[in-house]
Amino acid sequence: MFPKTRLIRSRLMVIDCHGHYTTAPKELQAFRDAQIAALKDPSVAVPAGPLAISDDQLRESVQPQLKFQSDRGTDVTIFSPRASAMAHHIGDAGTSLAWSRHCNDLIHRVCGLFPANFVGVCQLPQTPSDPLANCIAELERCVNDLGFIGCNLNPDPSGGRWTAPPLTDRSWYPFYEKLVELDVPAMVHVSASCNPNFHATGAHYINADTTAFMQFLTADLFKDFPALRMIIPHGGGAVPYHWGRYRGLAQDMKRPRPADLIRDNVFFDTCVYHQRGIDLLLAIVPADNILFGSEMVGAVRGIDPESGHYFDDTKRYVDASAIGDAEKQKIFERNARRVYPRINNALSE
Amino acid sequence: MFPKTRLIRSRLMVIDCHGHYTTAPKELQAFRDAQIAALKDPSVAVPAGPLAISDDQLRESVQPQLKFQSDRGTDVTIFSPRASAMAHHIGDAGTSLAWSRHCNDLIHRVCGLFPANFVGVCQLPQTPSDPLANCIAELERCVNDLGFIGCNLNPDPSGGRWTAPPLTDRSWYPFYEKLVELDVPAMVHVSASCNPNFHATGAHYINADTTAFMQFLTADLFKDFPALRMIIPHGGGAVPYHWGRYRGLAQDMKRPRPADLIRDNVFFDTCVYHQRGIDLLLAIVPADNILFGSEMVGAVRGIDPESGHYFDDTKRYVDASAIGDAEKQKIFERNARRVYPRINNALSE
Repeated sequence: MFPKTRLIRSRLMVIDCHGHYTTAPKELQAFRDAQIAALKDPSVAVPAGPLAISDDQLRESVQPQLKFQSDRGTDVTIFSPRASAMAHHIGDAGTSLAWSRHCNDLIHRVCGLFPANFVGVCQLPQTPSDPLANCIAELERCVNDLGFIGCNLNPDPSGGRWTAPPLTDRSWYPFYEKLVELDVPAMVHVSASCNPNFHATGAHYINADTTAFMQFLTADLFKDFPALRMIIPHGGGAVPYHWGRYRGLAQDMKRPRPADLIRDNVFFDTCVYHQRGIDLLLAIVPADNILFGSEMVGAVRGIDPESGHYFDDTKRYVDASAIGDAEKQKIFERNARRVYPRINNALSE
Repeated sequence: MFPKTRLIRSRLMVIDCHGHYTTAPKELQAFRDAQIAALKDPSVAVPAGPLAISDDQLRESVQPQLKFQSDRGTDVTIFSPRASAMAHHIGDAGTSLAWSRHCNDLIHRVCGLFPANFVGVCQLPQTPSDPLANCIAELERCVNDLGFIGCNLNPDPSGGRWTAPPLTDRSWYPFYEKLVELDVPAMVHVSASCNPNFHATGAHYINADTTAFMQFLTADLFKDFPALRMIIPHGGGAVPYHWGRYRGLAQDMKRPRPADLIRDNVFFDTCVYHQRGIDLLLAIVPADNILFGSEMVGAVRGIDPESGHYFDDTKRYVDASAIGDAEKQKIFERNARRVYPRINNALSE
């Protein structure tokens, strides 16, 4: 007879490391609208206290995500507030803190209602004048009090002006010390762009991914923090497609080979919305450094007329790829458990 | 008996659309150094008149390019000043004009010395406060007087601050009218980054490519200028790797399909430095929209230990790809003659 754990784990678990709460009840946006209005007109009242959103509203709001999980055969979504709405460039540190706490509290409530389906990752109360204002405290609250397993870190709180120092600058180090202490990773994720040059999901997101990778390649961040783990979403931006360029640049600059750079520290998700792109990613990047992700419900909402399936149904592409079962298991489950170790506690409760 | 033209053209011509004069004699940099020093200290003398560089120096300086052409089996390089040195963010419009004219004049002289090997593309005297300052006049000089066949257009003269309006903004339109009138294309190419977030060749270049594509996708530029032709270098940035994302975003936004958007107006080069990347590019992007390019002598100078060949020997990757001879002929020669029609005059002289 098989031991119990083996029976329970008779099929692959599929963990989606990249889901945003893009379907929150309208009361959340109403709070944000009031908050933004009050920045211009202090006579506008910003609601105090918890948002008046019922558990039923929350249950209803995540039906799209639950249906996609069921339809696509995924189990758990590592769930964070809507990335484009973080908008750290709006207001000041206080604005950002109040907004982040509401967003994180809702994630916590959703995870409590559906503990088998969602595990929380938090938004940080960054602000351009102080990219780490209140961030350590909010991270501690979310991880220690709310059971979150990671965070989204915005390398550009200015929203497309790129005024913060690179992620490898020592000003970020106190935050990284806390990440390591709590044993939680950060997904590098920008938010809305207020620079008209950059379309948010089509340019700013992808550029930030590419930018972060090159910052990591040219500095010794992971020598200073061997246990720090960063997820670069959206398939690593342009990096896998230009892998030869990065190998060559690293060689010219006498920096570590990209495969060595990323080994224990940098991970790409599978938010690449066509088969050829996923095939490239899986052929180029070691399976140990890839986490399954779909970004659902997110950047692209339609159905691909060429395939008849949702563009962001990325599990189909991974399933159809040429990699073996051992690699798939890493990408669907094992890597997420390694990169986000607190997920093991969250799922066993 | 075959007609003469058929005999002459018995083998494929290989036109490299993306080469920079990165090996110019040191007198060029000495001028630039003096120019920059004079910005801080007006007592520094900036040399007036043509640079004291002999034809022999020029011949010597392009031996690396000529050797690569010969070794790799390419014929003609569409040759422009060093992109990273354009640095439009330094000084003002006058600084940029003087610098651009020197750079362009040297390109003209090299093309005159090796008319079968090089055809000129010009740097533009852009400047952050006026992205098109003097650009029309310098373009006319280069095309009409110097026989150039195109230009490099910097979407971010601020060098990583991205303060200019998007390329689809009407403020650029007078320049596009001139491009159409002269029947020359523009390669969208940024320069050095003065923003510490962006490594120039590893992030800023690739980001700009992705950014420009998304600008084109979200505006009606090519409805307004059906004859305008833009080359997005470095394999189109992240675009082919994320082709599904762009198809999906276009569909969600009710914009043209990417393949329709680019058809007569947007072209990607083959500056992608590994086989898998080139294979993806050639599988995804119509062959009519791809121009052979290597970026030599440029961003990556080393030899790939995995292949034993130069990273930027992109002809090898195209040769080894699965596409047919008709597609290869388009990519190596025919598309360049269509996108840069003035090359036909230049090569027949």
